[in-house]
Amino acid sequence: MAAFFDRAYLQALLDVEVALAAAEAERGVIPSACVDDIRAVARAENFDLAELSADAARDGNVVIPLVRKLTAAVAERNLVSAHHVHRGATSQDIMDTALVLRLRDADSQIRGALARVMKAAAALARDHVNTPIAGRSWLQQASPTTFGLKAAGWLDMTGRCRQRLQDAVARSLVVQLGGASGTLAALADAGPGVTDALARQLDLGVPPMPWHTHRDRIVDVAAALGIACGALGKIGRDLTLLAQSEIGEATEHPAGGGGSSSMPHKQNPVRAVTAVSAAVRAPGLVATMLAAMPQEHERAAGAWQAEWQTMADLVAVTLESAGAIASALEELHVDTARMHDNLLMRGGVGLAEALSVALQSRVGRKEAMAHVERLCRDVERTGRSLREIATHDRDVSSLLTAAEIAHALTPENFLGAASVFIDRTLRQWEG
Amino acid sequence: MAAFFDRAYLQALLDVEVALAAAEAERGVIPSACVDDIRAVARAENFDLAELSADAARDGNVVIPLVRKLTAAVAERNLVSAHHVHRGATSQDIMDTALVLRLRDADSQIRGALARVMKAAAALARDHVNTPIAGRSWLQQASPTTFGLKAAGWLDMTGRCRQRLQDAVARSLVVQLGGASGTLAALADAGPGVTDALARQLDLGVPPMPWHTHRDRIVDVAAALGIACGALGKIGRDLTLLAQSEIGEATEHPAGGGGSSSMPHKQNPVRAVTAVSAAVRAPGLVATMLAAMPQEHERAAGAWQAEWQTMADLVAVTLESAGAIASALEELHVDTARMHDNLLMRGGVGLAEALSVALQSRVGRKEAMAHVERLCRDVERTGRSLREIATHDRDVSSLLTAAEIAHALTPENFLGAASVFIDRTLRQWEG
Amino acid sequence: MAAFFDRAYLQALLDVEVALAAAEAERGVIPSACVDDIRAVARAENFDLAELSADAARDGNVVIPLVRKLTAAVAERNLVSAHHVHRGATSQDIMDTALVLRLRDADSQIRGALARVMKAAAALARDHVNTPIAGRSWLQQASPTTFGLKAAGWLDMTGRCRQRLQDAVARSLVVQLGGASGTLAALADAGPGVTDALARQLDLGVPPMPWHTHRDRIVDVAAALGIACGALGKIGRDLTLLAQSEIGEATEHPAGGGGSSSMPHKQNPVRAVTAVSAAVRAPGLVATMLAAMPQEHERAAGAWQAEWQTMADLVAVTLESAGAIASALEELHVDTARMHDNLLMRGGVGLAEALSVALQSRVGRKEAMAHVERLCRDVERTGRSLREIATHDRDVSSLLTAAEIAHALTPENFLGAASVFIDRTLRQWEG
Amino acid sequence: MAAFFDRAYLQALLDVEVALAAAEAERGVIPSACVDDIRAVARAENFDLAELSADAARDGNVVIPLVRKLTAAVAERNLVSAHHVHRGATSQDIMDTALVLRLRDADSQIRGALARVMKAAAALARDHVNTPIAGRSWLQQASPTTFGLKAAGWLDMTGRCRQRLQDAVARSLVVQLGGASGTLAALADAGPGVTDALARQLDLGVPPMPWHTHRDRIVDVAAALGIACGALGKIGRDLTLLAQSEIGEATEHPAGGGGSSSMPHKQNPVRAVTAVSAAVRAPGLVATMLAAMPQEHERAAGAWQAEWQTMADLVAVTLESAGAIASALEELHVDTARMHDNLLMRGGVGLAEALSVALQSRVGRKEAMAHVERLCRDVERTGRSLREIATHDRDVSSLLTAAEIAHALTPENFLGAASVFIDRTLRQWEG
Repeated sequence: MAAFFDRAYLQALLDVEVALAAAEAERGVIPSACVDDIRAVARAENFDLAELSADAARDGNVVIPLVRKLTAAVAERNLVSAHHVHRGATSQDIMDTALVLRLRDADSQIRGALARVMKAAAALARDHVNTPIAGRSWLQQASPTTFGLKAAGWLDMTGRCRQRLQDAVARSLVVQLGGASGTLAALADAGPGVTDALARQLDLGVPPMPWHTHRDRIVDVAAALGIACGALGKIGRDLTLLAQSEIGEATEHPAGGGGSSSMPHKQNPVRAVTAVSAAVRAPGLVATMLAAMPQEHERAAGAWQAEWQTMADLVAVTLESAGAIASALEELHVDTARMHDNLLMRGGVGLAEALSVALQSRVGRKEAMAHVERLCRDVERTGRSLREIATHDRDVSSLLTAAEIAHALTPENFLGAASVFIDRTLRQWEG
Repeated sequence: MAAFFDRAYLQALLDVEVALAAAEAERGVIPSACVDDIRAVARAENFDLAELSADAARDGNVVIPLVRKLTAAVAERNLVSAHHVHRGATSQDIMDTALVLRLRDADSQIRGALARVMKAAAALARDHVNTPIAGRSWLQQASPTTFGLKAAGWLDMTGRCRQRLQDAVARSLVVQLGGASGTLAALADAGPGVTDALARQLDLGVPPMPWHTHRDRIVDVAAALGIACGALGKIGRDLTLLAQSEIGEATEHPAGGGGSSSMPHKQNPVRAVTAVSAAVRAPGLVATMLAAMPQEHERAAGAWQAEWQTMADLVAVTLESAGAIASALEELHVDTARMHDNLLMRGGVGLAEALSVALQSRVGRKEAMAHVERLCRDVERTGRSLREIATHDRDVSSLLTAAEIAHALTPENFLGAASVFIDRTLRQWEG
Repeated sequence: MAAFFDRAYLQALLDVEVALAAAEAERGVIPSACVDDIRAVARAENFDLAELSADAARDGNVVIPLVRKLTAAVAERNLVSAHHVHRGATSQDIMDTALVLRLRDADSQIRGALARVMKAAAALARDHVNTPIAGRSWLQQASPTTFGLKAAGWLDMTGRCRQRLQDAVARSLVVQLGGASGTLAALADAGPGVTDALARQLDLGVPPMPWHTHRDRIVDVAAALGIACGALGKIGRDLTLLAQSEIGEATEHPAGGGGSSSMPHKQNPVRAVTAVSAAVRAPGLVATMLAAMPQEHERAAGAWQAEWQTMADLVAVTLESAGAIASALEELHVDTARMHDNLLMRGGVGLAEALSVALQSRVGRKEAMAHVERLCRDVERTGRSLREIATHDRDVSSLLTAAEIAHALTPENFLGAASVFIDRTLRQWEG
Repeated sequence: MAAFFDRAYLQALLDVEVALAAAEAERGVIPSACVDDIRAVARAENFDLAELSADAARDGNVVIPLVRKLTAAVAERNLVSAHHVHRGATSQDIMDTALVLRLRDADSQIRGALARVMKAAAALARDHVNTPIAGRSWLQQASPTTFGLKAAGWLDMTGRCRQRLQDAVARSLVVQLGGASGTLAALADAGPGVTDALARQLDLGVPPMPWHTHRDRIVDVAAALGIACGALGKIGRDLTLLAQSEIGEATEHPAGGGGSSSMPHKQNPVRAVTAVSAAVRAPGLVATMLAAMPQEHERAAGAWQAEWQTMADLVAVTLESAGAIASALEELHVDTARMHDNLLMRGGVGLAEALSVALQSRVGRKEAMAHVERLCRDVERTGRSLREIATHDRDVSSLLTAAEIAHALTPENFLGAASVFIDRTLRQWEG
């Protein structure tokens, strides 16, 4: 669905025209014999995409020239059947229903990719439940966490995004059929029956009424896509940061790809960057979908038209992003040794909070913080380790034994509920 | 919630600190006696908003100076209790949980206003189930519809928006508690128990794990607010168009307000315009929330900060818009005579499709369209009515009797399934 | 430039590679003989767009596979020349410089279309300098203005947009050449000389330094395009409103196009709607360009990639919008009779301010307003004209003679400085 | 200008009313004596902000209640003068002109802060013209650059942003005066003269015609602010990345501030993060300004209203961001030792391109790349330095001497034109 108007969309438009004829035949609106005539010619390969595009610009949308050409093609088989092409429908009925069909396909692909992300993240969470890594806030080392918990966070967020997309798409899988003004007047009394039959033909739901200018369902899908892009972008951002040459805790190892044209040593995080890029593009695209909501009266004068390429782009970037992150996580090279080394760099001040907590069992919080701040400044000044400085500090060593200090400053002893949280998260998304 | 940092938010922050202390006392982390000391001083009126704002700019967020001042205030009552303020938490734990509390309140208000919109729209749909009005597509008169169906469309869309918001907020009502790196390490083994207790204290859910940099739940609420603004904007846009001096089919009649400072005759559609304005602002605000999703590692370096005012603005504009549209619809002045007159203006060409459909029972679609196009050009040229011209046209009068032509050109006879759709929609949202 | 990666962009990339070789030969970096070998094969038709696209997804950008294939193609002619393809450059050097070349072309086309808009708007302003039309604020009739002034407003705004675009593009027409880290280290001392020569080859400016992650120039162009779309969208919005069936003061008369598939009488404002749609899409696209600005260090990890399709879309929608509005204005059907009729509809209350001003020469502003408000209510209630009611009102007729009332209520007598403003505007953009 | 409607904006509104009276007195439209009466009461402290805000919600904008109250206040001094308050103007005339006055002030403050950024960046560029630092692309170490060139990039980009803002504001400093429909009809023939006089009073320019719904000038300022936020966000992003615990090449040293409530060792990059946050918010705000451009006819029904808070927010975040980055750069702690160490980490593979270039003087590009790729893999595998491995590699050592290898792998020898680019950039912005 990269380009809005591609062959697959054209076929979806034709599928809707055929289903409409079938539904109308079923309800006695048109002769049954017409349906086969229409179906016989309603194949994308019978139409010229470029010509239709050009006509669409003049006519206002692609269904106008398509119906013209489809009618002509049917007429070559059977003149009577040609009279029954597109009966009672308006262009937007066809385009919106085709969009819904396309979203159903896209949703299935995207959720497949998100499931891969979840599976890969869950595996990382399980494998690294006890792998300490520097926690980082404001891009500064904070107290340690585990790589498993980081991966569990990716899983948890992706799981919700997948569910949200599924829900939004499910709510949106309804047929559009309203005719010129949303009353189906051209079908006289047969309108609701044809709507129901069309929905059955396409395995879609029946909305209470046509929704030509009530776009919330579609925008809901757009928002779910945008949120998924944002979540995948967070994973991508984390991956680019972990892969930094100076950090190197986790790196993409794509088979081929990612090399630099001028720097032989470089391995670019192509997949993570794909997700970051998608997360930069998605907000503007979702904003466009939201901005297009106030559509005039029964059918819009501009806003609906703005949806077309926007929605196609949003689907494309989400699919690309989800696939990229799935592959990145599936083949991620995790370097636990670098995680360990980075955690203890700069004298191990990343564990300052752990020492402060240990001291708080003896003195007040304020005093404990003051001691540790002083020690950290000494680490900075001298380049010696926090453990060494704490052990030799008169005040601190009068409160904690060397063993207690060593215990406090061992990352594995300051991981709190990380494994509980991983466990809760895995259980949440299991099955 | 107009300004991000107002007195109500300050109180929410303090409420979270009190609830945290109570939860920690419940789990034996801090002495029970401390809780009352903290609660006693944790009242917004004890703190200086402007001073806190200024300190927040320097410290990075408002909880840092607030905890400092809260600790000092507790210390004046009891030095020991002061040690237990904010135990094990990070600033973001307090701010995110306070945000969730604020969203719960806002959701309740906004859904109240949306319920008013739904009730008023349903009443209009019921009252005008048979009121013909020109359908309008591309801002051109199309085949007729009913004002009831237009109102039913407002109802249907608003109903979904209200449900979507409720769902998104329900999914987001979870406590945030993770400490510095999301492990609650400073609470040792007590972390998960304190989290559970805190959630009970505040009547919030327990997430599988902290979500400091997993913002999809909050952005989901933002999107639901944005979609609601878009839907309300569609109603507002329709109202401004219906209220145009030249159309005048429905007008706001606010008690006072809406007058012009220089033009005595004017009655501005202040409420509809409020909703249109909100729909212009919301997309950019939602885009910001989406753009802020890729947050680094355990806690973000910039993106989280971008959420604060944005989320507050989004809540404020949605509430304002929903209230405005509710009032506008509740007091809407509907002018059915103007609807009728407008429908028949320009020779009644808005019913051209009806005549074409009638002709299609006798001749093919293409021929029928060609006849009607010719007649419409005559209407345009002569200024006479479509009915008159059709009745006197040799070709058309050979296919349809004068009575058939008159029947076809009566709006009430070309409303299709409008009443069925209204009925389906009312049943959907009933109760 | 509708799709980011099309044949024209591919040729631009190849043109930059050839120009780079020529520049390097000029500065003695590579043998002169190589240039012809490279130029001979650097033609878009020698490369497979689809294959390059697929490889780009894996490699991270399209220049990596392109250079590979270009080098291979050159090698078939001359192995030595193949060594000198893409010397010292990084992929982004080629892509950014090609983008600049494309923007130069696009700017010329867009400014051409904007000049057509200006010419057509100026003609309308001149032709309708004295054509009264209802002024409209909040979509309510306000005091009259002239259609000429409305067109002058379109001219004035478009003129500034055209100038702004020209300025922004002029500031951005600089070559990009920095190599891997922006130092051109691979060219040793020859870097600045090659940059200068490359700029001359392509008739571009030389920036003080490479700008791989300093995107403000490009975003400035994006903003200028977005502002132009907004301005054209305002014209499009005005045109759709003027063309409403109930107003009909100005309508598009495209040769062919704009018909409805089901309603024979309809003439959709396809061109105006194209501009409205573009104005809905542009803000999100510009927002993406702005969001992509904080690019990391020497070259970005995601944000630059987000620019590619976004910038192409922005150029495409602007060009489409400008062309559509140009055609719409050039062939606009202006109905001055409808303008006159609409102005005097509803009893002529659109001139209430005029009467109020006349009364203010006799009584205070407050009292004058009160009188006129009362009269307007009578118009509303009785359906009689403001002139008739004012003439028979005891209070008002004691202050103004019937002739004075008639004079005040003649639109032509209450047009203020409209013609002066038109004149000033035409002079501003003349020549 | 943090809140749209604050005391300073109220005073600006009142200043415009006074200037309007003075201009009208100057042109003989109102008695000169009125001006002093109006000026005497037109002080913000005489009005209740909260009350005006509440009334504004009902009336549609704040000038309507303000004029009412101002008129009443003037009437207490002099009944006649009260008749002449706000003569011939519409609310939007006052609000737009007040906005222009506010933008003039804001521009001056923001450009002051940007000048501080430029000065600090220029000093860093000068001081570090020869300080090698790892170049980084895709967040991977690339060939070296200098910290001076990085700072020069900040300078260059900020310089253009400052100039662009100045230009955009200069183009926008025009008075707004059009009355109800943009014709100044209520001023009869005096309109243009009053406009000119008002412009002189306020030291603003005279536009060719009123611009109530032609918003490109204001949006141009918005775009310039947004671009500045993006540029400052790039600096902020670089600073947060350089300040990472594992990199530590440059850190903020704010006096106070930036500490963590739980982690004694942490120093958060509060200022850089302020700029990153602003760069996340600005795109959505600019998008809103662009989306608000298609304003209906003579005055808008919703879009103008959307500008108010948006523009205020945009000014506020830009000012905050510029001030934060100025302070960050002025007090930046640069650690050249860490820059050096980081550059040579991982066996010095960041210089792989340098070795490849050296080899290309002996063999073809492809072969040179292949050699270096092999060496880099050995570095990765063995942990030995690239220099050591290259020196002992049979193939490479047959092409380059040990001294040539050592020369190639010394960062200072592979800085290309960095110092030339710094010099060109400093000269560009000097003076």
